[in-house]
Amino acid sequence: MDGRPVMLAVAGDSATGKTTLASGLVAALGGARATAVNLDHYHRHEREERAAQPFTALHPRANYMEVMAQHLQLLALGQPVLQPVYDHATGRLGRPALVRPADYVIVEGLLGLHTKLTRACFDVTVYVELAEPVRRMLKISRDVHERGYTEQQVRDELERREAEAAAFVRPQRAHADIVVRFAPIEERGEVGTDPLSATVLLRPTIDHPDLAAIVSPEHQKAIHLKLMRDDDGKPVDALHVHAYAPPDVTRQVQEAIWSNLGSQRPLPACLGRLGEGRRSEPLAIVQLILLHHLLGPAA
Amino acid sequence: MDGRPVMLAVAGDSATGKTTLASGLVAALGGARATAVNLDHYHRHEREERAAQPFTALHPRANYMEVMAQHLQLLALGQPVLQPVYDHATGRLGRPALVRPADYVIVEGLLGLHTKLTRACFDVTVYVELAEPVRRMLKISRDVHERGYTEQQVRDELERREAEAAAFVRPQRAHADIVVRFAPIEERGEVGTDPLSATVLLRPTIDHPDLAAIVSPEHQKAIHLKLMRDDDGKPVDALHVHAYAPPDVTRQVQEAIWSNLGSQRPLPACLGRLGEGRRSEPLAIVQLILLHHLLGPAA
Repeated sequence: MDGRPVMLAVAGDSATGKTTLASGLVAALGGARATAVNLDHYHRHEREERAAQPFTALHPRANYMEVMAQHLQLLALGQPVLQPVYDHATGRLGRPALVRPADYVIVEGLLGLHTKLTRACFDVTVYVELAEPVRRMLKISRDVHERGYTEQQVRDELERREAEAAAFVRPQRAHADIVVRFAPIEERGEVGTDPLSATVLLRPTIDHPDLAAIVSPEHQKAIHLKLMRDDDGKPVDALHVHAYAPPDVTRQVQEAIWSNLGSQRPLPACLGRLGEGRRSEPLAIVQLILLHHLLGPAA
Repeated sequence: MDGRPVMLAVAGDSATGKTTLASGLVAALGGARATAVNLDHYHRHEREERAAQPFTALHPRANYMEVMAQHLQLLALGQPVLQPVYDHATGRLGRPALVRPADYVIVEGLLGLHTKLTRACFDVTVYVELAEPVRRMLKISRDVHERGYTEQQVRDELERREAEAAAFVRPQRAHADIVVRFAPIEERGEVGTDPLSATVLLRPTIDHPDLAAIVSPEHQKAIHLKLMRDDDGKPVDALHVHAYAPPDVTRQVQEAIWSNLGSQRPLPACLGRLGEGRRSEPLAIVQLILLHHLLGPAA
């Protein structure tokens, strides 16, 4: 690699789709150009040890925050790190793994934007939210099927985590350049059983792609930008990406953003991929906007 | 810790007494002031994996050399590192451990002085040698009793390692400020079955304590300095520390160096300790000279 990599962070609560979002980006960039880094490996304790602690894995004290910041700084400088490895299936810490930064480093984790020092390592920061009933359902399903918990254990854990999520995870939302919320857009009459739409806050902390120039007016059914005020009153662009838009329109929007990147390759099929063959077109559009941030418009 | 720690390296071949030398220093300084770092944890492979490799654990390719240099740089700057952990008893790599540098960082390892980048991290560099028949005997004994090898396996391993020891370990001798050799001093008629004397090369690459001022003339039986030429023709001070000197004389020399350090505590009993209750007075004197380098003379 020549020089410093471009670093993107995806932060957010457990089971909000961080890995799905990030791994689509890594797949679209290609393994030779992109390095995936998961910060949840920086847990200090194994699952059994954690049971005796007065806090959950969400708490900064449950994580090597100082080492996490150090490793992110090293990666941002183009240096390799020997990253700890936490096996979510067994809850055990194992032998560390060498991670060498490629041109793009896609970082995901519960606490990636917790400190100023970690935030300073990133070129683009993203905070992901998922409609709470969907998040709970996904977390229970994943932790039961992939991590060996019982359903009751996951429900109890969600309960135990709530105060720490409020104290340490959700405040990171304020520090992201981009906030992505996958949820029904209620003001448009969407309900929870619909495929999830995305609301994307494009904050003025960084430059964003000029979507008005990329997406043509007739595609406004699928995606439209609205000037509004953020939670703190600051001006922000809010992008609505509707899940109910017709597939051909959504596809045209995706092609438009992709071709604006100047790639000779066809639109990567990995974008928008959920799991088990399912897809989310709003997710694909969010990933394309993030790719636009990473790759920049065609020269 | 305020600012940067003082860093000392002990390099040398397997079973030359690096750990014995280093742990005596750490014990004398005290755990609150000294951090022990063992670089042999930076092995890339577990023992079983290594069996399939065309090189032994001595080879730089068998070690995370780049990460080792990075961690030494971080420690030298006073930063903690998450160090890999190789269990010599089982030959397995385990969960990493947080190492936070105290005022003094005592580093030992097979390859600590292999690269210019690692050497630059140290204030004092030491290379240790042990008379070869004694080293072979100690290595066999240790690897059989503590590391689960058979005697024949250790003999085969010594054979396999020889070319790599010559190529990567022994050249580090040229880069040390201090070379310590525990062996019979043949020009004085000592033989292999005697307690081992020490020959200490005090190279002009750093300032050394003024031993002529510290050790009085009547103690020259135990310890004496001789101006000579190093292997490469450069001038060097060679210190002979004789194992056959009377215990009371050796003790007086030790007390003289110790009191020159201005400590109010008595001479630490941990200096010169071998294992199983055995002692080496030349080792104690070598450790005292190294403590002098770390602590400096009393103001």
